[in-house]
Amino acid sequence: MTLNRKLRYGMVGGGPGAFIGAVHRTAAALDGMMELVAGAFSSNPEKSRQMGAELLLDPRRVYGSYQEMVEREAALPAGERIDFVAIVTPNHMHFPVAKAFIEAGFHVVCDKPMTTTLEDAEALCRLVARHGVVFALTHNYTGYPMVKQARAMVQAGEIGTVRKIVVEYPQGWLARPLEQEGNKQAAWRTDPKQAGAGALGDIGSHAENLARYITGLEMEALCADVHTFVEGRAIDDDVSMLIHYAGGARGILHATQVAVGEENNLNIRVYGTEGSLQWFQEHPNELYYRPFGQPARVLRRGNDYLTDIARHNTRLPSGHPEAFFEAFANIYRNAGRTIAARLTGTEPHPFDLDFPTVQDGAVGVHFILTALESGRRRAWVDARYTPPSE
Amino acid sequence: MTLNRKLRYGMVGGGPGAFIGAVHRTAAALDGMMELVAGAFSSNPEKSRQMGAELLLDPRRVYGSYQEMVEREAALPAGERIDFVAIVTPNHMHFPVAKAFIEAGFHVVCDKPMTTTLEDAEALCRLVARHGVVFALTHNYTGYPMVKQARAMVQAGEIGTVRKIVVEYPQGWLARPLEQEGNKQAAWRTDPKQAGAGALGDIGSHAENLARYITGLEMEALCADVHTFVEGRAIDDDVSMLIHYAGGARGILHATQVAVGEENNLNIRVYGTEGSLQWFQEHPNELYYRPFGQPARVLRRGNDYLTDIARHNTRLPSGHPEAFFEAFANIYRNAGRTIAARLTGTEPHPFDLDFPTVQDGAVGVHFILTALESGRRRAWVDARYTPPSE
Amino acid sequence: MTLNRKLRYGMVGGGPGAFIGAVHRTAAALDGMMELVAGAFSSNPEKSRQMGAELLLDPRRVYGSYQEMVEREAALPAGERIDFVAIVTPNHMHFPVAKAFIEAGFHVVCDKPMTTTLEDAEALCRLVARHGVVFALTHNYTGYPMVKQARAMVQAGEIGTVRKIVVEYPQGWLARPLEQEGNKQAAWRTDPKQAGAGALGDIGSHAENLARYITGLEMEALCADVHTFVEGRAIDDDVSMLIHYAGGARGILHATQVAVGEENNLNIRVYGTEGSLQWFQEHPNELYYRPFGQPARVLRRGNDYLTDIARHNTRLPSGHPEAFFEAFANIYRNAGRTIAARLTGTEPHPFDLDFPTVQDGAVGVHFILTALESGRRRAWVDARYTPPSE
Amino acid sequence: MTLNRKLRYGMVGGGPGAFIGAVHRTAAALDGMMELVAGAFSSNPEKSRQMGAELLLDPRRVYGSYQEMVEREAALPAGERIDFVAIVTPNHMHFPVAKAFIEAGFHVVCDKPMTTTLEDAEALCRLVARHGVVFALTHNYTGYPMVKQARAMVQAGEIGTVRKIVVEYPQGWLARPLEQEGNKQAAWRTDPKQAGAGALGDIGSHAENLARYITGLEMEALCADVHTFVEGRAIDDDVSMLIHYAGGARGILHATQVAVGEENNLNIRVYGTEGSLQWFQEHPNELYYRPFGQPARVLRRGNDYLTDIARHNTRLPSGHPEAFFEAFANIYRNAGRTIAARLTGTEPHPFDLDFPTVQDGAVGVHFILTALESGRRRAWVDARYTPPSE
Repeated sequence: MTLNRKLRYGMVGGGPGAFIGAVHRTAAALDGMMELVAGAFSSNPEKSRQMGAELLLDPRRVYGSYQEMVEREAALPAGERIDFVAIVTPNHMHFPVAKAFIEAGFHVVCDKPMTTTLEDAEALCRLVARHGVVFALTHNYTGYPMVKQARAMVQAGEIGTVRKIVVEYPQGWLARPLEQEGNKQAAWRTDPKQAGAGALGDIGSHAENLARYITGLEMEALCADVHTFVEGRAIDDDVSMLIHYAGGARGILHATQVAVGEENNLNIRVYGTEGSLQWFQEHPNELYYRPFGQPARVLRRGNDYLTDIARHNTRLPSGHPEAFFEAFANIYRNAGRTIAARLTGTEPHPFDLDFPTVQDGAVGVHFILTALESGRRRAWVDARYTPPSE
Repeated sequence: MTLNRKLRYGMVGGGPGAFIGAVHRTAAALDGMMELVAGAFSSNPEKSRQMGAELLLDPRRVYGSYQEMVEREAALPAGERIDFVAIVTPNHMHFPVAKAFIEAGFHVVCDKPMTTTLEDAEALCRLVARHGVVFALTHNYTGYPMVKQARAMVQAGEIGTVRKIVVEYPQGWLARPLEQEGNKQAAWRTDPKQAGAGALGDIGSHAENLARYITGLEMEALCADVHTFVEGRAIDDDVSMLIHYAGGARGILHATQVAVGEENNLNIRVYGTEGSLQWFQEHPNELYYRPFGQPARVLRRGNDYLTDIARHNTRLPSGHPEAFFEAFANIYRNAGRTIAARLTGTEPHPFDLDFPTVQDGAVGVHFILTALESGRRRAWVDARYTPPSE
Repeated sequence: MTLNRKLRYGMVGGGPGAFIGAVHRTAAALDGMMELVAGAFSSNPEKSRQMGAELLLDPRRVYGSYQEMVEREAALPAGERIDFVAIVTPNHMHFPVAKAFIEAGFHVVCDKPMTTTLEDAEALCRLVARHGVVFALTHNYTGYPMVKQARAMVQAGEIGTVRKIVVEYPQGWLARPLEQEGNKQAAWRTDPKQAGAGALGDIGSHAENLARYITGLEMEALCADVHTFVEGRAIDDDVSMLIHYAGGARGILHATQVAVGEENNLNIRVYGTEGSLQWFQEHPNELYYRPFGQPARVLRRGNDYLTDIARHNTRLPSGHPEAFFEAFANIYRNAGRTIAARLTGTEPHPFDLDFPTVQDGAVGVHFILTALESGRRRAWVDARYTPPSE
Repeated sequence: MTLNRKLRYGMVGGGPGAFIGAVHRTAAALDGMMELVAGAFSSNPEKSRQMGAELLLDPRRVYGSYQEMVEREAALPAGERIDFVAIVTPNHMHFPVAKAFIEAGFHVVCDKPMTTTLEDAEALCRLVARHGVVFALTHNYTGYPMVKQARAMVQAGEIGTVRKIVVEYPQGWLARPLEQEGNKQAAWRTDPKQAGAGALGDIGSHAENLARYITGLEMEALCADVHTFVEGRAIDDDVSMLIHYAGGARGILHATQVAVGEENNLNIRVYGTEGSLQWFQEHPNELYYRPFGQPARVLRRGNDYLTDIARHNTRLPSGHPEAFFEAFANIYRNAGRTIAARLTGTEPHPFDLDFPTVQDGAVGVHFILTALESGRRRAWVDARYTPPSE
């Protein structure tokens, strides 16, 4: 039994000039399986209305606050109200918004990092469990088919035992103090109150998630160098760390927003006893695989020789490149199918469950806070995360 | 005055298993400015209905034939009927379908090559002029922002006078006789009746369009080697040609579907007296610019240093790669804005008129037929195209 | 029995300011198996003496003309006189110099293209046969180990039957009329009397040789577009051609010296029924191999997985790049070993015979003249070459 | 006044089967300015003799030990004896051999790392000063022209103030215990007595030297993770570290010999306030330069737009790639010219002094020992090096 209609969703955040809100909307639209029907796009009701009009929404479903939205949507008949909410606010608002919608029984797609405190993160874990909702965190880079291919190859033992992980996330857009020049994106992302952490939270957490998604390895200890290069900035803009993983692998993770000339160059190398893998976000359709003693292989998206899950998460034949939106849309599509299964009382396909969860979010928040602590103490620190027992 | 609603469109072709129909639907959906409301998805009414159901369309607007569709849609009230039709059938059907819809006053987005005869192509030119409709041809590769950047740079004289053009379109998917193994895509594309020409029509025409879009140069003469490598195939699967352009530039164009290992590697180099440009469709976010006597430069999509039209045709910041769907969507978005301007009686922005036209389609058909003739005669032939006076 | 001494050689050409003479000397020195002991470095005796002094040669063996050199060297005792001569003059002098030395019984290493007329080329073939000397032509690009790997793979059937060859040789250094600005290299290379042909002879002949070396295919017909872009230049600077090979393969060859931004970008693609190969001279340590239906493989010089002949022609472990000099030195080393075998009355190892011969030179000259004729006639022409029976 | 003869040199080490000895000999031969005339190629006199014979040396100058060599060469007349010695033994022998030759007044070219203890390194510094000899250390990677270009650009302020350095040296050849399988190279390089340190000494020291050469920055503190992955190996095979540089720059350095699929992938990125640079040893002819807010530029060896010192250290035009041997030969050529200047009592050109010195060697040894200590202590340590006052 399939859901014989589009999923309906609402958005909190994503008002005029916001970057990530528009990305979420495009990602959600890509497969024609969901439609935006409601929103509280800004804490400024006028801006929210303006955005709603631009998006051609019914003005009655454009709200002045998330509180109003959750209340009014919950009061709508089942056949009208939203199925899930997409939360695309600055980081510090993820928690209260998510909490309100979860408690009202709505499913959630939430941007990352999930919260700014571990307490909040773990509270969300409990809320999701208690209310039985679907919760997807948009660590969008794990939505790329070739990342899924890499994960499948590690799981299948094609590179043997993982020895070393090098994951990098260099950007350059904050090399100068844009936040002092009226750039809205820069402003909230460098405000400790709204963002929690800087480079570490914004992009370091993607790097952590990517490495863990592909290798399945948990951190045991880390030693981080957390730094702020740009004068007057109140938050980190550069972080480098050494990592020990459970089982003996070693790692290097670095993320920076001041690397002039870099755009969004997330990349990862995983070296195992039998082979290695390398992937670059800016050229996402290729995965380099170097088996021991043999020529390197360039695996490319869309080919029949890829694993099922990589082929499942793609839309175009090989050579017709896919990119950022399609990867992001994979989070939406998989979460959407899981939500639809929930609505129709069916079991989702195992591939549909392949999206980052609230638990991934808690691990990410723990990682950020641990790295900040290591940086402050200038020492190796324990990095193991034990989720609280319910 | 803006059109305060989504554009409504219908589709002819694009039934179950079709490739390009799904691409058109995704491209049209990407910007949230148009919605699919009707369709004649297959010449088999049952398949058409099935597709319509899958797409969650109102069954009353899913038709068993394009004739039925044009008649019934034309009879709907203005506030309901489609604004334009997307034609995604095999090539030989483009003409009758387009003709029917144009004569009924609908705007048209049509796949390429436009027709299988020059007579039909020129008839379409006349029909579009007579009925005053918007007609967009989906030579989607010119939708890429970095292709638009290249064109703007040539126009601005940044490479001086163009001397040499090398445009290549190698694919490998037809290296074996897939059409004899039940592959639907391969079947119609290698059937002379449905496709008109093989590699030459399917991809050679894209190469021609790309070179002309970037350089603005018209062909004067060409000498083509048109060949079929795969035994039992009734149509060309490999073509190479030498070209003389008006004004003295020389060119090489080759397109093949039997190049094992190639996927969709359309690429172009344009060498001028003062610099050169290079672009690869499979890595569409970069444009290589080599000014005389200076280091090569790598221009990347999404940066402020690009020209207005390149920045206008993009959706994501630099380093967040865009790809095939976004380029395709640029055709839809620009054509859609032009249609919307028509509907609201306003002037479209000049950038909105940046999509391939019915005249481009006629040039393309003329090119295909000229190359076929050169191949048959094994000689240089005149390649100048003079559009008929109305 | 090995030759228990270094080979002794002399040089004709390669005086002050010459490019290729210095390259030959470095290539010859690389393996420590031969030493330069004599020379007629310039037709200007003073310049010849100056070069000899710079090279620390015994002044008695620095000659004012090649005629003097051949006479005086031939008169020296066997234990002193040169074993072979390296001819690095402008093209039109290759023939008289080679003839003189061959007739005096010296082995020859000669730069390309071998001669400026087919008559001379065939005369050289006869002279070499009659006098039983070793003759090596420095088509240096076939000296690269990964080119040898490509040839071995084609021979082993790893790409099946060759269908299409695309070989390119774009340079940009003659995009402006350097020959009118006192550039010595440009001057003789654009002088029809000294060079015979321009881009076609200088680099087109390398492209021809490379394609033939790798695939073993002979041309059957070609249609060339031979052009001069730079005003006032008396020789071609740009050539493009379509080719039919014996056995049914098709080809494209283009070579240009006016492609602004290109340096020395010789490259080749060979597409077969079972796979394809691609190699770039500017990144010579890699060979791309794309087997049908499998991921592309990047074969890299220095690895154990390569064939014997590729490993035989290399000096450094993988990752320690080799380049132009080492490839050039492979011609010298292999020819040198063959000469040493001749001197010691032993059989050379089959790998030592792997250098371009006087027959290759004749094929190359025939190719150049055929392409010029096709260009003049603007038509397909027969390109088959039948060596004269002795 | 120029030295009107070739320099004469002898070699210690580099016997049958040695890798680096052959590299030194080829590098020394490349420019025809020096000749090998003597050697103690092995501590096994028979092997030394065998190597000497293979190299066609006068048997009287092939010695059974370095002690014999230094004594006998010193006793030869000035016009016969070697000008300098090349030391290519395992690391632990560098010191005694260098000491003996310096004390006898010979100039020295020595492989790296210079010594296995800081005491020895500093003793060498004093000996070089006292005896006034030329001492060159073969950190060959700084011999690449594009590395010199990078250094010149940093010095000229083209990337502003350096903020972050990422230098990597991944290899994979020791991913398995080759030293237990009779591989001679692996055996001594993993023997703590002969090598001192493993990956850290063998390649980490190259990475340190490269970063310091380009940026001129000294380390202030570092935190290293020094590890051995391969069971039974007595020495490190993987090292990663965080670095603080004087002046505030941050760094990451990692070197490994167990990265399956890597060959010799030394590479560096330097990010400054105004731009960044990136260079890969395996593609040494290119340097990527990304100025703030502008397109990336690809600088290529051999072009006129490069700085004087980059052009001075090259032999071929652009597009004719140079590689490992030429970079190595630059150390020899520059050191050789400095020695020749010493011999003729003239001043060397400033460019000729551009080779790694005995002081660089001491810094490198200090770096190795500091990193080992940090790894043992699992903590940040002071990394400043103050050379002893004489």
